[in-house]
Amino acid sequence: MNPDIMKERQNATFNIEKLTNILDGGPEKTKRRREIESMVLSDPDFQEEDQNFLSRSERYDQAVRKSAQMILKLREYGIADPEEIYIYKNCVHPDRPEPLDLHLGMFLPTMLNQATAEQMDRFFMPAWNLKIIGTYAQTEMGHGTHLRGLETTATYDPATQEFVLNSPTVSSIKWWPGGLGKTSNHAIVLAQLYTQGNCHGLHAFIVPIRDMNTHKPLPGIVVGDIGPKFGFHEVDNGFLKLENVRIPRENMLMKYAKVEPDGTYMKPPSTKLTYGTMVFIRSLIVGESALALSKSCTIAIRYSTVRHQSELRPGEPEPQILDYQTQQYKLFPLLATAYAFTFVGKYMRETYHRISGDIHQGDFSELPELHALSAGLKAFTTWAATSGIEVCRMSCGGHGYSCSSAFPDIYVNFTPTCTYEGENTVMMLQTARYLVKSYRQVKAGQQLSGLVSYLNEPKQRIQPQTVAARPTVVDINDLASLVEVYKQRAAILVELAAKSIQQELQHRKSQEDAWNNSSVDLVRASDAHCHYVVVKLFTDSLGEIGDIMIHSVLSTLALLYALHGIKNNSGDFLEAGLLNVPQVHQTSVRIKELLNQLRPNAVALVDAFDLHDKKLKSVLGRYDGNVYENMFEWARRSPLNATEVHESFHKYLKPLRAKL
Amino acid sequence: MNPDIMKERQNATFNIEKLTNILDGGPEKTKRRREIESMVLSDPDFQEEDQNFLSRSERYDQAVRKSAQMILKLREYGIADPEEIYIYKNCVHPDRPEPLDLHLGMFLPTMLNQATAEQMDRFFMPAWNLKIIGTYAQTEMGHGTHLRGLETTATYDPATQEFVLNSPTVSSIKWWPGGLGKTSNHAIVLAQLYTQGNCHGLHAFIVPIRDMNTHKPLPGIVVGDIGPKFGFHEVDNGFLKLENVRIPRENMLMKYAKVEPDGTYMKPPSTKLTYGTMVFIRSLIVGESALALSKSCTIAIRYSTVRHQSELRPGEPEPQILDYQTQQYKLFPLLATAYAFTFVGKYMRETYHRISGDIHQGDFSELPELHALSAGLKAFTTWAATSGIEVCRMSCGGHGYSCSSAFPDIYVNFTPTCTYEGENTVMMLQTARYLVKSYRQVKAGQQLSGLVSYLNEPKQRIQPQTVAARPTVVDINDLASLVEVYKQRAAILVELAAKSIQQELQHRKSQEDAWNNSSVDLVRASDAHCHYVVVKLFTDSLGEIGDIMIHSVLSTLALLYALHGIKNNSGDFLEAGLLNVPQVHQTSVRIKELLNQLRPNAVALVDAFDLHDKKLKSVLGRYDGNVYENMFEWARRSPLNATEVHESFHKYLKPLRAKL
Repeated sequence: MNPDIMKERQNATFNIEKLTNILDGGPEKTKRRREIESMVLSDPDFQEEDQNFLSRSERYDQAVRKSAQMILKLREYGIADPEEIYIYKNCVHPDRPEPLDLHLGMFLPTMLNQATAEQMDRFFMPAWNLKIIGTYAQTEMGHGTHLRGLETTATYDPATQEFVLNSPTVSSIKWWPGGLGKTSNHAIVLAQLYTQGNCHGLHAFIVPIRDMNTHKPLPGIVVGDIGPKFGFHEVDNGFLKLENVRIPRENMLMKYAKVEPDGTYMKPPSTKLTYGTMVFIRSLIVGESALALSKSCTIAIRYSTVRHQSELRPGEPEPQILDYQTQQYKLFPLLATAYAFTFVGKYMRETYHRISGDIHQGDFSELPELHALSAGLKAFTTWAATSGIEVCRMSCGGHGYSCSSAFPDIYVNFTPTCTYEGENTVMMLQTARYLVKSYRQVKAGQQLSGLVSYLNEPKQRIQPQTVAARPTVVDINDLASLVEVYKQRAAILVELAAKSIQQELQHRKSQEDAWNNSSVDLVRASDAHCHYVVVKLFTDSLGEIGDIMIHSVLSTLALLYALHGIKNNSGDFLEAGLLNVPQVHQTSVRIKELLNQLRPNAVALVDAFDLHDKKLKSVLGRYDGNVYENMFEWARRSPLNATEVHESFHKYLKPLRAKL
Repeated sequence: MNPDIMKERQNATFNIEKLTNILDGGPEKTKRRREIESMVLSDPDFQEEDQNFLSRSERYDQAVRKSAQMILKLREYGIADPEEIYIYKNCVHPDRPEPLDLHLGMFLPTMLNQATAEQMDRFFMPAWNLKIIGTYAQTEMGHGTHLRGLETTATYDPATQEFVLNSPTVSSIKWWPGGLGKTSNHAIVLAQLYTQGNCHGLHAFIVPIRDMNTHKPLPGIVVGDIGPKFGFHEVDNGFLKLENVRIPRENMLMKYAKVEPDGTYMKPPSTKLTYGTMVFIRSLIVGESALALSKSCTIAIRYSTVRHQSELRPGEPEPQILDYQTQQYKLFPLLATAYAFTFVGKYMRETYHRISGDIHQGDFSELPELHALSAGLKAFTTWAATSGIEVCRMSCGGHGYSCSSAFPDIYVNFTPTCTYEGENTVMMLQTARYLVKSYRQVKAGQQLSGLVSYLNEPKQRIQPQTVAARPTVVDINDLASLVEVYKQRAAILVELAAKSIQQELQHRKSQEDAWNNSSVDLVRASDAHCHYVVVKLFTDSLGEIGDIMIHSVLSTLALLYALHGIKNNSGDFLEAGLLNVPQVHQTSVRIKELLNQLRPNAVALVDAFDLHDKKLKSVLGRYDGNVYENMFEWARRSPLNATEVHESFHKYLKPLRAKL
C-alpha cells in the first residue's frame, strides 16, 4: 500500500465500516452486498478484456456473452430479489448498460402489466427463457418527450383481422431503443391505433422483427444499429422502419384497451399506474447520480493524496495536491453532494415503496407530490452529477483524461440520464407546474400539506425589493436555520414565477405564451425547491445516526453542502433579503474552515462508499494507491503496443522521405 | 433545403456575408480562407472514412496518411504563411490534433531557437524532410505543471564525452508527448543535467529513440503509446523510459547553456523569450475556445430550428424548439460568448504581434501584463467553452449524444485545453499573483497603467459591507456603464483577496500558507478580472463596426453577454453594492427581452461563422437542415450494420435457449 494513502486512513476520526453499514442500511445488508459482489468478481466466467482496448463490435460481443452468463447464473443461484439482482447486474456490467436491459427492464414488465392471459401464455415463458428477446420501441427519430406526436401507425384490417404497421415518414422511424439494433427478435411497438376510420391514440403492439431461427430481419422490417454514440458502446441502440408489417389482432396488448374482431374499439379504464413506474425509475436515477459522484470523488480524492506537485513552502517536499485549498474547494463540496444525493435517493425509494401499496389499491393521494418531486430531483441531481464528474476528472490533471482513470467511461455512460426518462428542462417545468398549482391553491384559500407546505406561510415571506429590511435571524452554523432559508428562498422564487405568469397574462398573452415567457423563472423556482428538499432531507437523515463521530463528520458535510449552495446562489439570498452582506461574506470564510476540518477524513469518507477496485476500474482510484506502476502496466497492454512498429510507418512515413 | 431553416435566413436583419468578412478581418481574408479550404475539401487525397466508424489504430493510420499528404501538398502549393498553414491543417484534420503536431509545432521550432549552427546542419534539414521525426518530451508520469520536479537525468561522462540519460523512477517515465508512442524517431528530452557532480537543472537533449530504417526502438529505449484517452484518438501520445541511453555531448541543445568536453558547465544568459511563446500559444487557445463554441452553437441553433416538439398552443402544430424560452436561454448566451471570445482572441493575437517586435529587441515592458492576462483568459475561456459545448449538446436531446451530432468529438478534443499549456486553476492563480502585486504597488503609492489601472481608483470603491449605501448610477441598458460595474467588481474582489492574505499573515501564517489559504478568493478575483476584460474588449470591438445593422445585432449580443454574467454572479454585484435589488431583478427581465430580440437573427449569426459542413461534420448542424434523412443514412453506414446478424447471436444467444 502507498504510504501516503495509508497515513490518510490512520488519520480518520471515525469508523469507516460503520459508515458503510449506514449507507447500505445495516451490517447485514453490507455483508450480503459483498457476498453477491464476490460471487461475480471471483467468477472466471465474468472475466473480461478491458473494454477500453476493444472495438465497438468486440465490446458489444463481450457484453452479450456476459449477459447470457448472467441470466444462467442468476437462475442457478436463485437470486430473485430485485435489489440483489440489481447488485449482481451492476457487478457483471460495472455500472454500464447492457444489451438485455430493455428485455429485462421493459419488455417483460410491460407484458406483466398489459398482456392478457392468452398473451401471457403465448409470449411470457418464451421471453422468460430468452427464446423471445424483446425491446420497447417508443421514441422515434423526430419525437421523444412529446408522446402524442409519435407518428408510427397501426391500422386495423378487419378483413384479415390484422394490424398493419407503418413508419409513414423518415422522422417516424423508431430510434434509440436499447437492444433493438442487433439483439432483439421482438419489439413492443408504440403506435397510433387506427380502426374504423378513427385514430385512438398510442397503443402497444407485439411485433416480431427477426426470424426466431436465423435471426434475420423479417419482411417489411428495416432494422439496425443507430451507430456509435458518446458512450453506451455495449448497447445496440437501434432503428426500426416498418413497411406494411402485418401482425395478428391478438398481438395488440389488450389487458386494458381492446379492438374487437370487427374493429370496434374499447377504451381502457383510465389508469395512473404508469405514473408510479416513472416515479420509481426517476428515484433510481437519483441514486445513480449519487453513485456516479461517489465513484468520481473516490477516484479524485484518493489520487489527490498520492499525487505530489509543486511547492507550498520553499525547500520542503512537494505537497499532496489535496493540501491545496483550490483542490479541496473543487472536491469536498462534491463529496458532500455525493452524500446528500445518497440520502435523498434512499428517501425517494423508501417513500415510493411506502406508498406503492396505496397506489396499487387505487389511492393516489400522495403520488402527485412525489411525482413532481421525482421529476425535479431527477433533473437537479443528474445535472449536478454530470458537471461534478467532469470537475473531478479535471482535478486529476492530464491523467484524468486517460481512459485508465475511468472518468471518460463514467461520464459518457452517466450523462444520458440528463436526457432520458424525461429531458431535464422538461422535468423542471413539470415540477414547476405542480409548484405553481400549489401556490394558486394557497391563494384560493386552501391549506397545503407535505413538502410544499411552505407555500402556506405568506406572512413569513417578504417582497424581493425590501432588502435589508428584514431582521437577521439566520445562524449560518445551524443546519435547521439553513433549511429555513432554503425554504424561504424556494417560496419567494415560486411566487416570483407565478407573478411573472400573471404579468404576462395582464399583457393579454395567452396562458401558453405566458407560461413559455416565464419558463426561465419557473425552472429557477423548481431548482430552488429541489435544492431546499435536498438540504432538508440530508439534514433530516442526520437525526437517524447514532454514532457520535459519524454524526459529527456528516454534519460537517451537510453544513458544507448548504453553505456552498448559498455561496453559489448568493444573489438569490441577498435579493430576497434572507441573508445580509456580512452573512454572505461569513459564509465564504466558514466554507474555508470546513474544508480544513474535512481534510483528515477525506479518504475515509470515500472509502466508506466501499466501491470495489474491480467495479471502480480506475488506475487513479485504486484502494492501495499504487497508481504509477499500474498506469505503466495498463498502457503497455494497449492494442497500439501490440506491435513495435505501426504499419503506417511503412505505408506512409518511410515512402514520404523519397518525395521530399 | 429544409423550409424552416430557409425561412430563418430570410428573417435575418443583416447581411451575413458582411459579418463573416468582419470576423475574418476583411473580404480578402474571407476569400483566401475559402480558397484554401476548398483546396483541401475538394482534394480526393484528403478524403476520409468517418472517424467514428474506425478503430483507434485505423484512426491513427488515417491521420498519418493525411499528415504525410499534407506535408507534400503544402510544399507543392508553396503555402508558407503560418496563418494559411493553420487554415490548411485545420481542414485536413478538422480541428483535431494529428500525429505530426509536435514535430511541426515543437520539435522544429525548438531546434530553430536553441540549436547551434552545427546542430542545425546535422538535424534541421533531415527533420524538415521528415527523415527525422521528432517530438518534445517534457511531461513525466509524476510531474506536469511543476517543471523543477522533473526527475529524468542526463549525466555527463567526460571519459566518452557522452550524456547518459536515465529514468530513475517509474514516475519519471516521460508521459503524454504527442507523436512519441509510434510516430517519432527522435525526441527532444528535457532532463536534469548533472556534470562534475553538480545538478544544473533542466536542459534539452536530442535523443534518437528509434532506428532510422527499421523504426524499431533503440537499445535502452522503452517506448510506446500511453493507451486510449477520452479523445485525441488520432494522436499517439507516448511514454519513454530511458535506461542508460548514451548520446554524444553534441546532442545537448547548446545555443545558450553549454557543457565543455571536460564537463565544465556554462550558464545560459537569462532569456524571457519562452515567456513570449507561452503568451502566443495561450492566445491561440482563446481563439480555439471561440471556435469550439461557434461550432457547438451552429449545430445546436440550426438543429433547434429544424426540430419540432410538443405543443405551445393546443391544436397548433408543434413549434420549433428554438421558440421555447428555456432553449433560447441555454443557447443565446453561449452564442454571445462565442462572439465575445472571437473578439478577445483577435485582440490577444494582435496585441501579441504588436509587442512581439519589442520582445525580440529585449523590451519586455508590456509582456508581464499580457502574460498574466493570457494565463487567466486561457482558463476563463476554456472553462466556459468546455461547459458550453455540453449545454449545446444536451439542448439537442438524445440526438446530441449520437456521434453523428459531432458533439462528442468536439467535446473530447477540446476539453484538454483546460489542462494543457498550464492547468486552469494554476493559470488563474498566476493571474491573481499579478493582480495582487499590482494592488500592492498601488498601496505603495505607484500609479498603474494598462488593463489593471482600475486598481488605481481607491476612492471609487466602497467597502463590501455598505450595501445600498451607494447611489445608483448604473444603467443596465448601457454597455459602457456595465463595463464600469464589471471593473468595480474586479477591483473589489482583488482587494478582498489581498485582504484575506493580509489577515492570514496577521494570524502568524507564513507567506505560503497565507497564499494557499486565500487561493479560493484569488481565483475568484482572477475570474472577475477576466470577465471584466472580456466585457470590455467585446464592447470596444463594437466601435470598429461600421455597418449599422451588424452593429445593432452585435450590440444586443454584447448586452446579453454582460447581463447574463451579472445574473449568474448577482451575489457579487449585490454584495459589493454595485447594483441594487431592483436592478438585479430588472436584469432578469431585460435578458428575456433580449432573447426575443435575438431570435430572428439566431441562424444568421451562426451562419456568419461560415463553418463548412465538411469541417463541422455534424448531421444535426448541416447548412441545409436536412437532418433526419442524413441521420438515417449515417446510421446505416455504421460498422455494426455491415452484417445483418451479429456473430454474438450464434455464439451466445442461440445456445442460451438450450440451457434455460
